[in-house]
Amino acid sequence: MKRREEMIYDSHYNRLALLGKEVRGVSIFDTTLRDGEQAPGIALSMDDKIRIASALSDLGVDVIEAGFAASGDSEKETIRKIKELNLPSKVCSLARSVKGDIDSVIDCDVDYVHTFLATSDIHLKYKLKMSREEVKAKAVDAIEYARSHGLTVQFSCEDATRTELDFLKEMHIAAQDAGASVINVPDTVGVIYPSAMTYLIEELAKVTKVPISVHCHNDMGLAVANSLAAVAAGAEMVHVCVNGLGERTGNAALEEIALGLYANFGVETVNMERIGAVSKMVSRITGYPIPYNKPIVGRNAFAHESGIHVHGVLNNAATYEAFRPELVGMDRHIILGKHSGAHSVRDRLNVLKVEFPDERMNELLAKIKEVSVGGKEIDDAELIAITDHILWSRGEEDPIKLKEFAVFTGKGVTATATVTVEVDGKKRTSSSIGIGPVDASINAIRCAVNEKITLEEYKLSAITGGSDSLCEATVVIKGAYDDRRLSVGKAVGLDIVATSVDATMEAINRDYIRGERS
Amino acid sequence: MKRREEMIYDSHYNRLALLGKEVRGVSIFDTTLRDGEQAPGIALSMDDKIRIASALSDLGVDVIEAGFAASGDSEKETIRKIKELNLPSKVCSLARSVKGDIDSVIDCDVDYVHTFLATSDIHLKYKLKMSREEVKAKAVDAIEYARSHGLTVQFSCEDATRTELDFLKEMHIAAQDAGASVINVPDTVGVIYPSAMTYLIEELAKVTKVPISVHCHNDMGLAVANSLAAVAAGAEMVHVCVNGLGERTGNAALEEIALGLYANFGVETVNMERIGAVSKMVSRITGYPIPYNKPIVGRNAFAHESGIHVHGVLNNAATYEAFRPELVGMDRHIILGKHSGAHSVRDRLNVLKVEFPDERMNELLAKIKEVSVGGKEIDDAELIAITDHILWSRGEEDPIKLKEFAVFTGKGVTATATVTVEVDGKKRTSSSIGIGPVDASINAIRCAVNEKITLEEYKLSAITGGSDSLCEATVVIKGAYDDRRLSVGKAVGLDIVATSVDATMEAINRDYIRGERS
Repeated sequence: MKRREEMIYDSHYNRLALLGKEVRGVSIFDTTLRDGEQAPGIALSMDDKIRIASALSDLGVDVIEAGFAASGDSEKETIRKIKELNLPSKVCSLARSVKGDIDSVIDCDVDYVHTFLATSDIHLKYKLKMSREEVKAKAVDAIEYARSHGLTVQFSCEDATRTELDFLKEMHIAAQDAGASVINVPDTVGVIYPSAMTYLIEELAKVTKVPISVHCHNDMGLAVANSLAAVAAGAEMVHVCVNGLGERTGNAALEEIALGLYANFGVETVNMERIGAVSKMVSRITGYPIPYNKPIVGRNAFAHESGIHVHGVLNNAATYEAFRPELVGMDRHIILGKHSGAHSVRDRLNVLKVEFPDERMNELLAKIKEVSVGGKEIDDAELIAITDHILWSRGEEDPIKLKEFAVFTGKGVTATATVTVEVDGKKRTSSSIGIGPVDASINAIRCAVNEKITLEEYKLSAITGGSDSLCEATVVIKGAYDDRRLSVGKAVGLDIVATSVDATMEAINRDYIRGERS
Repeated sequence: MKRREEMIYDSHYNRLALLGKEVRGVSIFDTTLRDGEQAPGIALSMDDKIRIASALSDLGVDVIEAGFAASGDSEKETIRKIKELNLPSKVCSLARSVKGDIDSVIDCDVDYVHTFLATSDIHLKYKLKMSREEVKAKAVDAIEYARSHGLTVQFSCEDATRTELDFLKEMHIAAQDAGASVINVPDTVGVIYPSAMTYLIEELAKVTKVPISVHCHNDMGLAVANSLAAVAAGAEMVHVCVNGLGERTGNAALEEIALGLYANFGVETVNMERIGAVSKMVSRITGYPIPYNKPIVGRNAFAHESGIHVHGVLNNAATYEAFRPELVGMDRHIILGKHSGAHSVRDRLNVLKVEFPDERMNELLAKIKEVSVGGKEIDDAELIAITDHILWSRGEEDPIKLKEFAVFTGKGVTATATVTVEVDGKKRTSSSIGIGPVDASINAIRCAVNEKITLEEYKLSAITGGSDSLCEATVVIKGAYDDRRLSVGKAVGLDIVATSVDATMEAINRDYIRGERS
């Protein structure tokens, strides 16, 4: 990897403020497969978990919390399978501070357990209904039991950040005396403030001889700042989830912690250039989209649209980027939209190999502005469609006219469509079958117009509401007039089939108009 | 509003750590309509901006940055219209430090301008190609020009956090001497660390007599922490965007700043109970979804699925929530999925008024676990479908059999469908027209089976790929067997029309089976 100074364009004030904070190695404890999976709506299969565990190990996390063994046989089986992969990362299971849970962990043949018990008054009173002495005894029993079976133990005082300091210190002392190797400080409900975290960790470090770890939730948007504050105060391990998954608003995001540790403390943890790919994989598998504006891995993290920013970035990316995208396995994007200038548009047209005269650039910019109002950003297909529209705008007459179109489908009937088109005053009729009425209709049009036409892409917007809601169809074809040129057609309507046919005719006509005029 | 202590369940460590930090009132400067709109893919129409501006004013922000007047006539017109609303919030426009830009602002009849000029060496060298002296002179000229036209001026040293401290102080002194009312400290590229921000603001406060404002970007996930650190160090205004929109990974999120200021410093800024609604509105208008795990306003912020958490929350929400959802206009959700226990499921069934025997609860939980693996969370329609499936599972014979189905559509033809169903051995045939083949088919089935059937909801998944891609249709009907009961049918297939018909028949049959057996 290149030198840190070449990758990160940070603020020199950071070095002043952190002066004297010596941070040694920090371990990454990833809980994507446990706390991450607990996020509402995430349920991973064994295969999913194995794929994510392998990716996390390649990424270089130190510990993978693979699940909560006691939650069921399939969970146990999954944890066992992950352990059997013999990954370089340690594999751990969560367990409540009860023998049964620890037995479940032992059943999985893993040698690392993360036990927990709540210690805050609010949890003692409303959830556990136990006294502090009972909690301490139960935690110690569980740790000793796990140790007697040869397990490495990380112990968490759940809701530590709302636990009274003297009792929290007492618990830390008891846990390390019972044999815990790491003691974790969870901000279970995401309520602490960074300078308070500094205070808390410094206080706990006075009595804690084993490494301190932190587990921060993001309810107030401070999970990353709190985790970094803990590290600056002496914590040696950080719990993270890929993409900041986890209960409610999630845990500290792996990617932000890895970058923050590197940028601010010069500590290298994971193989950062794999971050982009792992983030995308976890998003795909969990079904949780990556927010557009997610730090590090969002599609906008290195995207620039506004004229001033694009101009700066094209001169020197450091003007409007905090670090280089390749550091985290991402790419830079220049986006076209309402705020674009000629620089960006010309750049994109060149990439797409679309010829467009400079003297009509203002017309193109105006059209982009017009289309993007209310609409979204201009993707490549749309940019091609807009340039087509300007250069080869359809006259009053389409060169290919759809004169007739009929489609028939049903139960026990192969969908069959017949179309008649008129080209140069001559009518051509073709029929075709298809997997359904849309497919049959598009096939019939291709037969009638030009058999070389291939359907490159077909998109139909989701419909929610009634069966008579508006839908939008987008058709990308190739080979209508020119064998290699893509042509795009779009239509909006109430009838799924008729709208798809309209979009197809639009794409074909655009290509013919363009071909005949050039 | 209730007392802070009843709404926020924060950490007592926060009070210890912040002891002695006296924070007076803080102003909220909202730039959703300017920096927010610059996010790739966002382009707001005049109507959009007016609606958002009104909502921001109702929310109670102090200043609305309504746009960048010099970017075009329609932008100017929009800013003028927003000013004409005479909202309680001040209305401001961005301007580069050039006369033309300030003239554009004057044209809009607003009396507040936010001027900026970059001051970091990297911007001077690669973007502006100017010396420090030139930059200072240009900034002062612009401020004086704006002041001479009676405008209130907020001035930003762009990229302040990478600007050398002595020069930054020199700029602050020059700007206030020239008449700036507020000086803003932008962390343009999102690179500063919270304790560095504290240092920087304390240093700047030594020479700055006017209020200091901050504008933080989230490239490293620290925008909120940095903004709060700045306030603790003496800043009196914070720039925010709803939902954390803005260039790249966005600005500090309005909702997180408002809550953070209230929770940590006891400072009330906006009407927090409107936050949820404003966030949803901005998401709808911008097309930027609210991330599931977004702090404060994400659908998961107050959602609980796992057994331990649901059990805690049902006893006392403070066990697993940082603050009460009603404080920010949100609701609590108990989600059903892989990690659910009987508590949650029974609770939901009661809300939906679905009768389900306790003795079959384990079967239901197992089915929920099975369906949610790989799948997503179980929504109400799905829960009804699953309980139906268990209680009224279809036998080998559907009570209503689809014997024939044919649909015809085309150009100049009204979509027409004919279906024959068999009920109790008797055939009934009906035909119907519709807006397209799906609508016609569903209408014909209703005519043949029972005219009282109403289509309550129709969903078709988006299709991307070819015209022969898989699609999923979901149909919710009412009135098949029972007049008031909803029944859900789902089908997956290649043909949009046939799949919609299958889903409709499934919904009808489920309701009949249930009706006949009960």
